[in-house]
Amino acid sequence: MIAEIIAAGSEMLTPFRQDTNSLYLTAGLNDLGIPVAFKTIVGDSLEHLTSAAQIALSRADIVLFSGGLGPTEDDLTREAVAATLGLKMVRDNTIITMLHKRFAERRIAMPPNNAKQADILNGAEMLPNGNGSAPGQYLVTNFAGKRRIVVLMPGPPKELKPLFVSQVKPRLAAAMPPSFLARRELHMALIPESTVDARTAPIYQRYADVETTILATQGEIQLHFQCAKPTLEEAQARVDAVVEAIEHEMDEDIYSSHGESLEEVVLLMMGLRHLTLAAAESCTGGLLSERLTAIAGSSRYFLGGAVVYSDALKTTFAGVPAEVIEREGPVSDAVARALAEGIRERTGASIGVSITGIAGPGPGTGADVGKPIGLVYLGIADTDGTQVKELRLNGDRERIRWWAAQHALEQLRRQML
Amino acid sequence: MIAEIIAAGSEMLTPFRQDTNSLYLTAGLNDLGIPVAFKTIVGDSLEHLTSAAQIALSRADIVLFSGGLGPTEDDLTREAVAATLGLKMVRDNTIITMLHKRFAERRIAMPPNNAKQADILNGAEMLPNGNGSAPGQYLVTNFAGKRRIVVLMPGPPKELKPLFVSQVKPRLAAAMPPSFLARRELHMALIPESTVDARTAPIYQRYADVETTILATQGEIQLHFQCAKPTLEEAQARVDAVVEAIEHEMDEDIYSSHGESLEEVVLLMMGLRHLTLAAAESCTGGLLSERLTAIAGSSRYFLGGAVVYSDALKTTFAGVPAEVIEREGPVSDAVARALAEGIRERTGASIGVSITGIAGPGPGTGADVGKPIGLVYLGIADTDGTQVKELRLNGDRERIRWWAAQHALEQLRRQML
Repeated sequence: MIAEIIAAGSEMLTPFRQDTNSLYLTAGLNDLGIPVAFKTIVGDSLEHLTSAAQIALSRADIVLFSGGLGPTEDDLTREAVAATLGLKMVRDNTIITMLHKRFAERRIAMPPNNAKQADILNGAEMLPNGNGSAPGQYLVTNFAGKRRIVVLMPGPPKELKPLFVSQVKPRLAAAMPPSFLARRELHMALIPESTVDARTAPIYQRYADVETTILATQGEIQLHFQCAKPTLEEAQARVDAVVEAIEHEMDEDIYSSHGESLEEVVLLMMGLRHLTLAAAESCTGGLLSERLTAIAGSSRYFLGGAVVYSDALKTTFAGVPAEVIEREGPVSDAVARALAEGIRERTGASIGVSITGIAGPGPGTGADVGKPIGLVYLGIADTDGTQVKELRLNGDRERIRWWAAQHALEQLRRQML
Repeated sequence: MIAEIIAAGSEMLTPFRQDTNSLYLTAGLNDLGIPVAFKTIVGDSLEHLTSAAQIALSRADIVLFSGGLGPTEDDLTREAVAATLGLKMVRDNTIITMLHKRFAERRIAMPPNNAKQADILNGAEMLPNGNGSAPGQYLVTNFAGKRRIVVLMPGPPKELKPLFVSQVKPRLAAAMPPSFLARRELHMALIPESTVDARTAPIYQRYADVETTILATQGEIQLHFQCAKPTLEEAQARVDAVVEAIEHEMDEDIYSSHGESLEEVVLLMMGLRHLTLAAAESCTGGLLSERLTAIAGSSRYFLGGAVVYSDALKTTFAGVPAEVIEREGPVSDAVARALAEGIRERTGASIGVSITGIAGPGPGTGADVGKPIGLVYLGIADTDGTQVKELRLNGDRERIRWWAAQHALEQLRRQML
């Protein structure tokens, strides 16, 4: 059984908008052991939609449509599927009543063209939409002598997601041979993908029934494992076995084995150790603080700090002596050290962290003349003293800032191990 | 003339990866007046790729492939196109020499399967790839009696983008009737999309030859205009005319008419007025500072500030009296006012901005008990005094933080007008 996802909507054929529903739908289909073989994006044209529907029904067992179920002339998914399958549509009176009620609640008369949202393909089940006016449809049918499942879903993610989970997935599960999927993931920071692969491939390749995916994102490698078996216990046991073997190999390089982000792990470890943190950020300009405070509950461990973008504020908020900045330059081991110690002292946090560097695109100026773009000093001060790490980062301003913050988080984690 | 974009790669049929090249390619095709009618995403299967190629060649005049040009067994785009068009492939000796040279530079012997990257469709032009080993291909051919342009490009964006711009776009432009495209965009912050549409639709609808797109992103509405004419002057005149009419209507609600971001506009206005800025952020935790410092050159106007996440730091870094925090609660008009004034004074900036609020998911605690999630106070202190604005924001933690920072930027802009 293979699936095809068709996203209908001319806006997804512009440079501005992308189909994002398919990622979510793919995850849900994979849960049931159904691979997605094709994705098609098509505009609001009856001819193009009908052609796409024909092609999909000829090559995939399950065809999921998202979008094109609204009340306007441009909403043509129902019509295209009806034409492809040679089916009539039946106007559903319960939906008409419900639509009138929705409009009455907002004290508006229902425009006549909204009634077309009540048109159901002959033989299809209507799938109520709790978050919008267009219901979904689920149809088991034949196309050119082959059994096909056709699903129509509204385009807005806030309508599609709950409808898929509560109405579509259970129906597809019932149509599939029983199978249970177990999943785990391992996250590592700042290790090259090739290193992770070289060290882990000999392990995960021994587990042929576990599907392994390596994902490299900004300063992070994730290993995703999944396994389908007739019972959940069997599937879970296989996934746990490969995770355990890889944990043994990668050990402390792994920062999370249950999906937590690096920020969450750092905050969690601080909580366990009754520690608090403050940050003095120069080139990252608040990015490290922003990433930590994006986590709900971070205020228990992260006190705050200073964005010491100008030289003067390095003195005002972290007590860095002006003559040190002048002599060594703001991007220096000495300034990173003084910033980390200063912010720790001023805030009373157990740990002070500092970042100062040259993010570009311009080179170092003043006392930093001649220092290269990407040179970053990272300071961490705690009761045991202060450590400064010199980094040489590549890439543009955005990448250098992100990796500098990533190094700060990973360094904090490693020091707390 | 219509185009279809085919993205080849099984990773784009997982829940983890998406085709992003097509947005870039679509913009480039639209520049030439070529609309994209279909996008297909297909895995690394010769059967599926060949079927997708057949379908695309039967319905689109121009078919662009991205991906599947590498050296591995999974890289099958060349083979699929050759099979569909019934063409032989010719091994190109210049490419073989170049491949050997690339490997020699890294002091590795070339693995034999890399040679297949030198296979060129009979009749196709080879498009040199300055950033990778797989060259592109450009072929003008016939399929079922119709003229077709087929373009093969490598998948990695860093290879595809320069190759498309320097090699593909000029060839497509030469193949199209001469047409010049002019574009403009207008940006507005914090205005509902429906309001923008109600006020501007009567204007832009009078310009039937100008294509208008409304995009709503986080706290921002963009109006994009484009117009194609036989000369650039004609196209530019039409786009400028609609922009001018809408500028007249929306006036100061428009923050940018040449594509600058809100952050850039605020910094630009500060530069023109010789002003400097410092920020004291509580619930946004550094987001406002991070957004401003993401702009290169921001250090001339943005000095920095403090992330006053804990109550104590509101006193330490911005001198907010502890009794005011205790009496009014950290999320209050009085604390926002004291933060803005305090950070201005401590840093010596011409303007001090402060944000304090309840971002959720938890409700207010301590002296803030009973205050709702989404309540945010925004303070701005300058030589004329201090203004505090109370905001009631909706949504989750991430949305509330983003909108609070957006309001701060927009308020700064409006005060500088």
